Amino acid sequence: MQRSLHAARLLGASAALRAPPPPPFPPASAAASRWGPPPRAAMSTQESFRIEYDTFGELKVPSDKYYGAQTVRSTMNFKIGGVSERMPVQVIRAFGILKRAAAEVNQDYGLDPKIANAIVKAADEVAQGKLNDHFPLVVWQTGSGTQTNMNVNEVISNRAIEIMGGKLGSKIPVHPNDHVNKSQSSNDTFPTAMHIAAAQEVNEVLLPGLKKLQNALEAKSKEFSQIIKIGRTHTQDAVPLTLGQEFSGYVQQIKYGVARIESTMPRVYQLAAGGTAVGTGLNTRIGFAEKVAAKVAELTGLPFVTAPNKFEALAAHDALVELSGAMNTVACSLMKIANDIRFLGSGPRSGLGELILPENEPGSSIMPGKVNPTQCEAVTMVAAQVMGNHVAVTVGGSNGHFELNVFKPMMIKNVLNSARLLGDVCVSFTDNCVVGIQANTDRINKLMNESLMLVTALNPHIGYDKAAKIAKTAHKEGTTLKEAAVKLGFLTSEQFDQWVKPKDMLGPQ
Amino acid sequence: MQRSLHAARLLGASAALRAPPPPPFPPASAAASRWGPPPRAAMSTQESFRIEYDTFGELKVPSDKYYGAQTVRSTMNFKIGGVSERMPVQVIRAFGILKRAAAEVNQDYGLDPKIANAIVKAADEVAQGKLNDHFPLVVWQTGSGTQTNMNVNEVISNRAIEIMGGKLGSKIPVHPNDHVNKSQSSNDTFPTAMHIAAAQEVNEVLLPGLKKLQNALEAKSKEFSQIIKIGRTHTQDAVPLTLGQEFSGYVQQIKYGVARIESTMPRVYQLAAGGTAVGTGLNTRIGFAEKVAAKVAELTGLPFVTAPNKFEALAAHDALVELSGAMNTVACSLMKIANDIRFLGSGPRSGLGELILPENEPGSSIMPGKVNPTQCEAVTMVAAQVMGNHVAVTVGGSNGHFELNVFKPMMIKNVLNSARLLGDVCVSFTDNCVVGIQANTDRINKLMNESLMLVTALNPHIGYDKAAKIAKTAHKEGTTLKEAAVKLGFLTSEQFDQWVKPKDMLGPQ
Amino acid sequence: MQRSLHAARLLGASAALRAPPPPPFPPASAAASRWGPPPRAAMSTQESFRIEYDTFGELKVPSDKYYGAQTVRSTMNFKIGGVSERMPVQVIRAFGILKRAAAEVNQDYGLDPKIANAIVKAADEVAQGKLNDHFPLVVWQTGSGTQTNMNVNEVISNRAIEIMGGKLGSKIPVHPNDHVNKSQSSNDTFPTAMHIAAAQEVNEVLLPGLKKLQNALEAKSKEFSQIIKIGRTHTQDAVPLTLGQEFSGYVQQIKYGVARIESTMPRVYQLAAGGTAVGTGLNTRIGFAEKVAAKVAELTGLPFVTAPNKFEALAAHDALVELSGAMNTVACSLMKIANDIRFLGSGPRSGLGELILPENEPGSSIMPGKVNPTQCEAVTMVAAQVMGNHVAVTVGGSNGHFELNVFKPMMIKNVLNSARLLGDVCVSFTDNCVVGIQANTDRINKLMNESLMLVTALNPHIGYDKAAKIAKTAHKEGTTLKEAAVKLGFLTSEQFDQWVKPKDMLGPQ
Amino acid sequence: MQRSLHAARLLGASAALRAPPPPPFPPASAAASRWGPPPRAAMSTQESFRIEYDTFGELKVPSDKYYGAQTVRSTMNFKIGGVSERMPVQVIRAFGILKRAAAEVNQDYGLDPKIANAIVKAADEVAQGKLNDHFPLVVWQTGSGTQTNMNVNEVISNRAIEIMGGKLGSKIPVHPNDHVNKSQSSNDTFPTAMHIAAAQEVNEVLLPGLKKLQNALEAKSKEFSQIIKIGRTHTQDAVPLTLGQEFSGYVQQIKYGVARIESTMPRVYQLAAGGTAVGTGLNTRIGFAEKVAAKVAELTGLPFVTAPNKFEALAAHDALVELSGAMNTVACSLMKIANDIRFLGSGPRSGLGELILPENEPGSSIMPGKVNPTQCEAVTMVAAQVMGNHVAVTVGGSNGHFELNVFKPMMIKNVLNSARLLGDVCVSFTDNCVVGIQANTDRINKLMNESLMLVTALNPHIGYDKAAKIAKTAHKEGTTLKEAAVKLGFLTSEQFDQWVKPKDMLGPQ
Repeated sequence: MQRSLHAARLLGASAALRAPPPPPFPPASAAASRWGPPPRAAMSTQESFRIEYDTFGELKVPSDKYYGAQTVRSTMNFKIGGVSERMPVQVIRAFGILKRAAAEVNQDYGLDPKIANAIVKAADEVAQGKLNDHFPLVVWQTGSGTQTNMNVNEVISNRAIEIMGGKLGSKIPVHPNDHVNKSQSSNDTFPTAMHIAAAQEVNEVLLPGLKKLQNALEAKSKEFSQIIKIGRTHTQDAVPLTLGQEFSGYVQQIKYGVARIESTMPRVYQLAAGGTAVGTGLNTRIGFAEKVAAKVAELTGLPFVTAPNKFEALAAHDALVELSGAMNTVACSLMKIANDIRFLGSGPRSGLGELILPENEPGSSIMPGKVNPTQCEAVTMVAAQVMGNHVAVTVGGSNGHFELNVFKPMMIKNVLNSARLLGDVCVSFTDNCVVGIQANTDRINKLMNESLMLVTALNPHIGYDKAAKIAKTAHKEGTTLKEAAVKLGFLTSEQFDQWVKPKDMLGPQ
Repeated sequence: MQRSLHAARLLGASAALRAPPPPPFPPASAAASRWGPPPRAAMSTQESFRIEYDTFGELKVPSDKYYGAQTVRSTMNFKIGGVSERMPVQVIRAFGILKRAAAEVNQDYGLDPKIANAIVKAADEVAQGKLNDHFPLVVWQTGSGTQTNMNVNEVISNRAIEIMGGKLGSKIPVHPNDHVNKSQSSNDTFPTAMHIAAAQEVNEVLLPGLKKLQNALEAKSKEFSQIIKIGRTHTQDAVPLTLGQEFSGYVQQIKYGVARIESTMPRVYQLAAGGTAVGTGLNTRIGFAEKVAAKVAELTGLPFVTAPNKFEALAAHDALVELSGAMNTVACSLMKIANDIRFLGSGPRSGLGELILPENEPGSSIMPGKVNPTQCEAVTMVAAQVMGNHVAVTVGGSNGHFELNVFKPMMIKNVLNSARLLGDVCVSFTDNCVVGIQANTDRINKLMNESLMLVTALNPHIGYDKAAKIAKTAHKEGTTLKEAAVKLGFLTSEQFDQWVKPKDMLGPQ
Repeated sequence: MQRSLHAARLLGASAALRAPPPPPFPPASAAASRWGPPPRAAMSTQESFRIEYDTFGELKVPSDKYYGAQTVRSTMNFKIGGVSERMPVQVIRAFGILKRAAAEVNQDYGLDPKIANAIVKAADEVAQGKLNDHFPLVVWQTGSGTQTNMNVNEVISNRAIEIMGGKLGSKIPVHPNDHVNKSQSSNDTFPTAMHIAAAQEVNEVLLPGLKKLQNALEAKSKEFSQIIKIGRTHTQDAVPLTLGQEFSGYVQQIKYGVARIESTMPRVYQLAAGGTAVGTGLNTRIGFAEKVAAKVAELTGLPFVTAPNKFEALAAHDALVELSGAMNTVACSLMKIANDIRFLGSGPRSGLGELILPENEPGSSIMPGKVNPTQCEAVTMVAAQVMGNHVAVTVGGSNGHFELNVFKPMMIKNVLNSARLLGDVCVSFTDNCVVGIQANTDRINKLMNESLMLVTALNPHIGYDKAAKIAKTAHKEGTTLKEAAVKLGFLTSEQFDQWVKPKDMLGPQ
Repeated sequence: MQRSLHAARLLGASAALRAPPPPPFPPASAAASRWGPPPRAAMSTQESFRIEYDTFGELKVPSDKYYGAQTVRSTMNFKIGGVSERMPVQVIRAFGILKRAAAEVNQDYGLDPKIANAIVKAADEVAQGKLNDHFPLVVWQTGSGTQTNMNVNEVISNRAIEIMGGKLGSKIPVHPNDHVNKSQSSNDTFPTAMHIAAAQEVNEVLLPGLKKLQNALEAKSKEFSQIIKIGRTHTQDAVPLTLGQEFSGYVQQIKYGVARIESTMPRVYQLAAGGTAVGTGLNTRIGFAEKVAAKVAELTGLPFVTAPNKFEALAAHDALVELSGAMNTVACSLMKIANDIRFLGSGPRSGLGELILPENEPGSSIMPGKVNPTQCEAVTMVAAQVMGNHVAVTVGGSNGHFELNVFKPMMIKNVLNSARLLGDVCVSFTDNCVVGIQANTDRINKLMNESLMLVTALNPHIGYDKAAKIAKTAHKEGTTLKEAAVKLGFLTSEQFDQWVKPKDMLGPQ
């Protein structure tokens, strides 16, 4: 209080003397404005709505939407974060795949083929992303994702009803619970959709991005294999290596990053479907779990299997914590690589200046030659985000209770975000930076030749003490090693050239 | 590799025997599809574009957009994360406020009043959120936010040109750099917008949310002040307290949460504007910084001042790390409170069952009376997210170099996200849960009366040893304390009733 | 300042009236006292010291210590954290193994066998932990661990000199750099010692601990396989499962935890030795790296190999970030399991009370039967610590520059701490809690039979609507399902008993 | 498994052909050896023990120790982590202060003065650290710290008995529970000791360390106030500032760091004492809480007060999460400053080379002039650790349940560790680095004069286009700006010198 009073005073004493007009852009607590126009259910006229109901009663549903009462109820109860916090579309599409798979398997177990067929068609549209506008719910809902599961059930049910010529909201002939959700529970379908979505994002975005970057770095490593440069340890001058060797370290990091991600996938490929409410599989049929997993594998081309222990699959999401941990390691790798590249490319006059980075946009309207390593900056920002996401996933993953972990929507949001950002930024970094990196060989050679570290090579010829004397003299007088050596009379210029060969310092003898 | 081979095998050996059809929903590396339709600049026909240029050359700009070449260039170079990763609209609106303030101050220092006036009008539209569609850039761009600053400059310039009757893209009579960005640099404007946006979100969303929750908890604490219940430590039975006392702890946590947030704000109210490129204020005028801060304070009603040290204000964002840390503490408080409430409300038959939580939506189609504490789940998920966001902010905040921290967009995204989610979830939790909490007094009394801990009250009357014998007997035989006491002959039923009074155990004597 | 003034006032106004005596236990800035007695090098009399020198000059070294000048210099320059912050002894012992291996390989390449032999003997003593008192350096030193490498070199050199009858500190006939450190650099030896120490701790402590816990949980899962209990989702009553099924989820978590740790080890088994200063292997011999790794493998019985890319092995410690990530996942698993067990064991009267946990120590001097789930608390505290350690490792791992990561000592300290604490707490938890857990079958049966969820079984017989009516009635009137069902006249008592069989609800049909 | 098999194979096929001898340093599961010699209670002969008892029975206690049965029991039940994981001595000493204060207040309320006096004397010895050897318990015990509270009670009781001439272990005339723990519970004393210990460490170590660093940086800022140097943004060349201005940013960061820490202290100065088991203060007297806080304030010279809400003070440790958050912000500041200093001091030939850092120890036996910025490395390692500790504190702080948070020992361990490490490293960094930093003015001038950014100053004289042409020409041809300007004929050498004055670029006009 005192502080804000103090702050208020800084606005000028005169402010207190007259009644000031209200500021034009106050941080008004206008929650309404933050939520933009009121939800259509509240705003629209009678005509543009239909009435749907759930066990809590009737609600108005926008007539141009396929979702039903439970979805509307969730939008009323969870006004948290706004549009950008909606359930990731990857989860919705994964649900489409799962619901189709379940319908097909349910048909094997007796579901009316006409109903199954309509569900399959509607679910396909969900899987293809054609109905994305019908999924308004935010992540910050029930921790089991039940409301999103019901959103999916309602949309598919209504769309299937429409396909079959029925009336929206009638639940006839396709009931959201009895048919679309048959043999399922939110508690096993949501984690199944989480794993499908995560596995697809990893295979579609993350791994291709990493491999693309790996290849680009590898090409640079080869391109730079003959360029000898000064090494740096503790950020200080050290003995030489090739620029290609330096880049080979980056290649190895990314290559291992791919291996790290892949090593976590076997557990991500395990699906909870068939566990229903608590993992026992109550109300499913023997074989349902296995068949659904096989169907999902067929639909996605990914090696999904049914989880061997459904209790673990509902109550814990260790597999996603593990995947997130692998992405966290990849983030560390990328942070290191991007930092190196921007520092090696720093300048143009007052930095290290060994690399010339592509210029992608105006760095400044004044100074030509200024390159802001903007792609490196995007990489390092993404790395920080992934580290943060990982902590959110960890906290959520550790807080399950009994038969259910109820941090599901938050966890998958963060895992998908990390996978997407890492994959995308690898592509952006590769295309807009890595492939265009050039070695500033003049600068590299100059630094290398001026380096006092090369004196190391003289040890076998004139002994450590004399070599040290040369280095100290050169450092003190600001000359080259050769100048100092010749001046001290320890060797001739020709001997120096013969003995001090950076080329011979690049590996074991 | 071996692993994916193994996984592939799980798809069935027959898969290898025939050429299988491609799966319908493969995780295709169709990066294009992820990005939806190509940017309009690439897709549209000649007619719907104008040509704008920057120092890198010409680019097509959608004719219905106010932004210019540098914005388009950023959309081409940073295809990272998609629409949901756009620069938060709060930052855009804060920029509108800042640009208006700067134009007015620039007019004091000689800027043509006609130009200043047009900029003010255009900036107001940005501040009011009317031009949100003209800000397509994602967070994952240059770490200084330069591209968003230029996006703002371009939009305001073109809108001001339009107001003055000029031609879009001509930069005449209002130039994005020379006029809109006058006396400014991205390096000082972006952190200024960060602080304005953060302060507004804190005052508009976070603090009102916390205070609303505090009030609701306080009302419940008073309502429950006479209900004596068993305490629990180590999750185990302990001595009694009132339900009101229990809730008073929650009140204190939230009250301190408000104090914690507020204690960080003095440093958030400091603005970098006037520091320009490196903090020296090159190309500004003496007094510019102070006047801009005063103008922003006037426009927002918040006590902004100019930062006393601009070098710190550009190169470090400790103030946001600090604010994030306060929100992290609030997250811990909320996690604790929401956990308590859901456990105290667990049941209906097999939980602790001391609280009756409002039923907001169908918990299950089968079991009436089942209340899923969904609001608590949203709270705890938000808490986990805020903890994760805090680590992202911390990593970004620690990695500035020399005169600039280049994790700016990432940092403000996370800070705003935490403030918004915490504020919103407090409102949702209050409205949809806290205000409706009822005490299950029958259950509370039953547990209290059965408790073995009440034996403590007998110590002064019959001594520790006999009291312990009573408790042990009751525990072993599953009886009440009174039954055991009377059976053992240590006291009469009347004496027990006189001496064991939970009411007398609620405070010091 | 104002605050402390304010705080001072709280001490009482009278304090200002007289000169108060100094408080007896002030937080004196007595840095000296924090450091206990001054280092012996500064304190001791002339007699108990010898003089050693490094390139910076002479220093007094305690005569009863084997370390030399560079170690003393580090104790003077890094007074950070005190004794508990010393380099973990596991790292010192790993260095002993490495130095022995290097000496043997150096002998192959020409090192005088007498010197090699003396080094081997001294190194063995280091590896056996016999010389632990000679390693006083803290973790918070140079980030390459150079000072610890020199500490090791000095100790081995002096001990070898002693073995060969020479004079301590003379560096003759065994020189710390020329002989003990031959073909090595701190930059490759320290990461080698990190990997050896981590691998040993994982194999010695972490994995045995996890497996022991897994076995104990598995035994309980079998023991409890016939006990049917109510399930809980969202912490609320749900459909039944067996207690054995519930524990099987824990078994799966730990089993996967073992797999997660193991899947990271291939990269931990890669050794940097042979990379020397920057990864090129300057001053080593062809084959040295491979032979040292093979020798270390032989000495430890663990499958160490030489790192395929030494540049990565020096500049990044992704392998340890990865291992830490796996331990972070294990921490999540343990947090979940320990939380479940303490909540299921809560009571004795007012909790869930389904489990009876072993009583290990007095919970309270008053209340018999109170069990504090202290082992669970140790587990969850360790889990939180491991999550924190993981962030420290992540931050360190992401901040390497160029040819060297200089967060080495901090990283290995945290990795070893996590491995040790997790392994130890698994053993403690198993021995002192898990093996003694008993099912409170009376309580379990009571809760199960009272559960309203069992109504689910009636759906196929009387339909959903009537079943719901039964459940609602029972909930409202506080009766059993059977009572409500019979009262409503929907079925007979016999039919209820026939149709509602929890045993049939434990799996798919 | 497969992996380790694979790894085993790498050891060479021949290994399989003969029975290999066991490796000399296997990661044996020799838990015993890890625990060093068995606890004395198990090892010693009959003679060196006495028998003590608690409510669980009798135990052997080493006869030279003051602790009793409950302490021994804890050492048996919690073999986790070993000696370095012992309860921080600061907590033990804080307990000494608290127990003395409680004894004095208890005397006011009727405790026998002779007993009170003996407790005071014994507690003083604990507070002075004289009895540190009698506190063997590790942090990883019960989460309420009960066992450490009992350890303190036992030690003080026995020492007081000794003072009064009684028999150790007899509990006569000073009983650990009835007298030493009078009016107290572990649940309020442990958090009280946490706050005392934290406040003392902050005031004794952290704040003095920060202020020392602040002063040293401020002195440097003044010393360097006239040295104009090139600025760097995005790690790239930018417009100039003075080295003093650059350092002034660091000063501001540390100054605010002090303010951040101080702003959290009011809540740390609140003590839980008087809340006893659940916060109600059962078994205390009215006024006890306030008097104890006043007494602790008097003993420590710090403004402690009684916590206004004891329920919050036992069930949540938000105050420590908050303090940890402030330290996390300080860690970010230090990471930034130390990174800058090591990069500005990088070289000697191939880095930025603007600063000359003190040489404290041999960087390399070969290269004179090589300075490893080892103090910066210790600083950044500490910063990473503090960030990690903060997450551990956060996770612990968020997981309290009902009337008690049971992550107490873990939380205080991390808070004290952060405070100590930060304070110590500030002192070390100041003494061994900051005070000795010199500006390399030749290098600074050279870089500044070569900079292309100075062209900015020509804009008002020759216009942007010509200025840009000069800069581009200079960049392309590798000449100075002046050379390019004169060559292009845009101005004379004299004009250049007159117009391009870095001195005039250091602030607003």
